[in-house]
Amino acid sequence: MPEFLQPTLERIQPVRPEATARAQARLDKLTKPPGSLGRLEELARRYVAIRGTHPPSLRNKGVYVFAADHGVTREGVSAYPPEVTAQMVMNFLNGGAAINVLARHAGAWVGVVDMGVDADFDSRPGLVHRKIGRGTQNFCRQPAMTPEQARRALQGGLDLADESAASRTDLLAAGEMGIGNTTAASAILSVITRRPVEAVTGRGTGIDDAALNRKREVIRTALARHRPESGNPLDVLGKVGGFEIGGIAGLILGAAAARIPVVVDGLISAAGAALAVSFKDTVRDYLFLSHRSREPGHAAFYEWLGERPLLDLDLRLGEGTGAVLALTLVDAAVKVYNEMATFEEAGVSSKGELSRP
Amino acid sequence: MPEFLQPTLERIQPVRPEATARAQARLDKLTKPPGSLGRLEELARRYVAIRGTHPPSLRNKGVYVFAADHGVTREGVSAYPPEVTAQMVMNFLNGGAAINVLARHAGAWVGVVDMGVDADFDSRPGLVHRKIGRGTQNFCRQPAMTPEQARRALQGGLDLADESAASRTDLLAAGEMGIGNTTAASAILSVITRRPVEAVTGRGTGIDDAALNRKREVIRTALARHRPESGNPLDVLGKVGGFEIGGIAGLILGAAAARIPVVVDGLISAAGAALAVSFKDTVRDYLFLSHRSREPGHAAFYEWLGERPLLDLDLRLGEGTGAVLALTLVDAAVKVYNEMATFEEAGVSSKGELSRP
Repeated sequence: MPEFLQPTLERIQPVRPEATARAQARLDKLTKPPGSLGRLEELARRYVAIRGTHPPSLRNKGVYVFAADHGVTREGVSAYPPEVTAQMVMNFLNGGAAINVLARHAGAWVGVVDMGVDADFDSRPGLVHRKIGRGTQNFCRQPAMTPEQARRALQGGLDLADESAASRTDLLAAGEMGIGNTTAASAILSVITRRPVEAVTGRGTGIDDAALNRKREVIRTALARHRPESGNPLDVLGKVGGFEIGGIAGLILGAAAARIPVVVDGLISAAGAALAVSFKDTVRDYLFLSHRSREPGHAAFYEWLGERPLLDLDLRLGEGTGAVLALTLVDAAVKVYNEMATFEEAGVSSKGELSRP
Repeated sequence: MPEFLQPTLERIQPVRPEATARAQARLDKLTKPPGSLGRLEELARRYVAIRGTHPPSLRNKGVYVFAADHGVTREGVSAYPPEVTAQMVMNFLNGGAAINVLARHAGAWVGVVDMGVDADFDSRPGLVHRKIGRGTQNFCRQPAMTPEQARRALQGGLDLADESAASRTDLLAAGEMGIGNTTAASAILSVITRRPVEAVTGRGTGIDDAALNRKREVIRTALARHRPESGNPLDVLGKVGGFEIGGIAGLILGAAAARIPVVVDGLISAAGAALAVSFKDTVRDYLFLSHRSREPGHAAFYEWLGERPLLDLDLRLGEGTGAVLALTLVDAAVKVYNEMATFEEAGVSSKGELSRP
């Protein structure tokens, strides 16, 4: 594992089973049949065990939208022109995108991170400058980035996790924007989950059959040319990744080290999470998996991880939209934990003798 | 169809396809690839088309929790003693139950309706008196209620829908409380969906194998004795139903007549919805289906209706808890519809020429 990550990786500790059991014990005293709130109880006990405070608090919630451009768009792999990345960054900053609406709905702040958009932005509230370059190289022909750039992409995410911890953030979501980035995410997931390119590559923003075939061929060519090592996430990121995907992986690693859970969004966010888990498997204890998108690589990610997501709403937008919707479920679960009456407090008979004839 | 329902049934009109298409046209102008918000777009266009106002508003949201007792508990079909129904009503009124916490989370008011609890309650804010009796008869031996009581149960729900319309309610959810009511709901769903008792009967609040066998035998005995007519929902309600289930069916019918959509909750709420749809099939246009519980009868309901629910969170509590969680998704969808920028407003290039090499 790369040396600059060592201190972070060492700080990532498994969530203690006693803490999880203690949280479930509290849930079992609440006025409901044991376990009857299903996955909401799972969310509550995991959140409580991760955060380790009693009573748990969930006040400060935020979503980082990592944005970057991709040289591979020159191969005709997207339904939208690359200028849309920068245009959407402006839309995020003006509050008009889906992620803005849904983050307001969820009571979460939005931080837009320029990891490497092919445009320059003036300083603005809500915009974080972490630009590594004006887009990656076209990884069909050469590695997407240099090893140093891959390191910097991860470091950008680590730094945001540190800042989030310093400003007492309780829960993070990781979203993204980048025309071409489903191509990079599919390439990463093909390598990490060791699945064929066809099994992890879909239509992204909505390409036709011809473009889908081209996209698959581009990924196959890149993997054959660069041979990224499945067990070496830094190598995978550098050869076929994206700056925003590195940022997401770094954020997740840094957040896990700081005991801040991260809600994972769609395909690209999942590729970042897959890299983070490949750096250290314990990271999975800190992930909340939001939704299953229509992208086949997303399903491959969940199979590889052995987990199932919370929502199945046919979303395929990214930005963090599914993640902030799932964040409202974590919020609801923590409220259940904190606000419901116990059987004793409410004077309700708990499960006992069957009432027989 | 029963005469007292005729005026309501006549007012229930199909949602106009033009209204749905117009709503989708607006969604397609927003800054996202067309259809990329998946089922959230479906919620938005259905809500907008049902309500018929531009811009759509979703301010006044509420959940009715219909409570009643069940004579069939004397057969030992529940894990909890029947006193728990009244105790939980008090818990609802004191704000300590799961539905209170989740309704606050969703920004929805809670109305607790005493349809027939085996206890007397003083008047209190939030409590609606619609008591038909102190619980149903034990339907293993005699019909659960008289035809007149079945009519009054439906009427109670119809009246609440009228009151909701008068107080400008935009969206309703239908929940319930009643020890023994999964037995009644399974019996109803067996008849309406024409499925064997085993296929629609589960463990409710958590009974063991012996009690589950007893519960199935009780339902089989009741259906053999009373022979409720599958095509006659009033007959089904009267013979093996519950007062709260009649209330839910009435609320749904009245709400559909007033163009107020209703979010359906778990097994018991589904049984009420199945009765309502049996009275008039068009009612389905006004239903939002919240979640898939662990009860097998719930899956049977969705198959019969040919729809799939929004959430799959292993909930099995009832009260309206899954419905208010789904209500937050409808809320999010309407916000997306109202608040997102269009491509034109945001200056974002829409899907166009592929960028080719």
